[in-house]
Amino acid sequence: MDEIIYGKNSVLEALIAGDREINKILISKNNRPDVKLNKIKELAKEHGIVFQFVAKEKFSQYSEFNHQGIIAQISPIKYLDLDDFLENKHSNESLIILDGIEDSHNVGAIIRTAVCAGVSGIIIPSRRNVQINSIVEKTSAGAINHIPIIKVNSLNNAVEKLKNSDWWIIATDASAKDNHYDINYNDMNFAIIMGAEHAGVSKSLLKLSDFIVKIPMIKEFNSLNVSNALAIIIFEAVRQKLTGKH
Amino acid sequence: MDEIIYGKNSVLEALIAGDREINKILISKNNRPDVKLNKIKELAKEHGIVFQFVAKEKFSQYSEFNHQGIIAQISPIKYLDLDDFLENKHSNESLIILDGIEDSHNVGAIIRTAVCAGVSGIIIPSRRNVQINSIVEKTSAGAINHIPIIKVNSLNNAVEKLKNSDWWIIATDASAKDNHYDINYNDMNFAIIMGAEHAGVSKSLLKLSDFIVKIPMIKEFNSLNVSNALAIIIFEAVRQKLTGKH
Repeated sequence: MDEIIYGKNSVLEALIAGDREINKILISKNNRPDVKLNKIKELAKEHGIVFQFVAKEKFSQYSEFNHQGIIAQISPIKYLDLDDFLENKHSNESLIILDGIEDSHNVGAIIRTAVCAGVSGIIIPSRRNVQINSIVEKTSAGAINHIPIIKVNSLNNAVEKLKNSDWWIIATDASAKDNHYDINYNDMNFAIIMGAEHAGVSKSLLKLSDFIVKIPMIKEFNSLNVSNALAIIIFEAVRQKLTGKH
Repeated sequence: MDEIIYGKNSVLEALIAGDREINKILISKNNRPDVKLNKIKELAKEHGIVFQFVAKEKFSQYSEFNHQGIIAQISPIKYLDLDDFLENKHSNESLIILDGIEDSHNVGAIIRTAVCAGVSGIIIPSRRNVQINSIVEKTSAGAINHIPIIKVNSLNNAVEKLKNSDWWIIATDASAKDNHYDINYNDMNFAIIMGAEHAGVSKSLLKLSDFIVKIPMIKEFNSLNVSNALAIIIFEAVRQKLTGKH
């Protein structure tokens, strides 16, 4: 289980101190609004932290704690800010952008593969994507500690910022015309957007992308698992880098 | 849960009929030996089926059945015999050999990726490897029904047979000198052996292999997840096939 902070006072203090990375705040629907709860909601909004109203049954797993119907889930890692990342000079580097990946095991496997491939960072949105929880940490086999995780409120804004900072954006889409190995990955900074297995990359992100590529298959029975798809693309870039061949 | 057969008579009949693929037989340690149990053990040995003596608590999940302390776990799929597979003519095809993969999710992901890459079959040993269970089936996203699974008693014997039938054997090993993309995968039948994440491919199989290759990494912090590693190699073969470029 992820580390949690429970009870109104503790959650409020954590929000005020701002020294712990909070993934999500859960509030029981049975809680009556009061000054502290309102303050918690206000601060959560201010810091872009997701808060959800849930049925009180959701809290049964926390029954050993005096939680007062409020729980904050703490991230096991410290996130990096995109602006701080972009302040440093980057050349011939890569990033991975996760757009709505819902399976923690897949996110863990992607992070592990990304580290092996020398990727410079993983960008995740603060909503509609798995956050960095203990399953991600475990599946990454420790890789999570070897790569910056950049959490952003809007992937669209993040992609705009990257484009303005000389990064090329590559989105994956099963119906793309170009193949992933048609791209020359050498001599540029590039970010690869991986979408959810069924929904794919969001339309707005596809529009912002410089390249849209697919992984051509011999047998089109189904799509690949998202971590396997990412592995194929990023290690094609590694092959190009190490051999100098496109 | 896997499909099961329970009770001495049913398990014995299934063994005699031989028309259902049994993955494993579980016998409660509290069971006294009798004629039927001895016959079950004898037939299981004869057919290379694993049987395990387990604490009676293991049977609590089957309490709704009148199991008499004996359960046979049935495979959801029908296996193909290697000799039957080799009787057909093969050209420019590929196989994947799983040598001690212990995680069902990885086996499922490997099967899914293999189908997308047009692989002709998966070879698994009857011991020391995940069998085809319901997790494998689910993780494969249905791919399990689109590729023959070839179960063999000895991987060494299977590899010898493949070599005698004009198949080239490629093993993966982190300390290999050659890179996976150095191989020209066109114009040959090849089988790729993937080993367990920690132990790697068995020494005896490495000796029998025609090629031993690694996936070169940019950052050597850890090995890749085995399904991601397989995806990288088999889709390099797909790239070569589709582009004609080595």
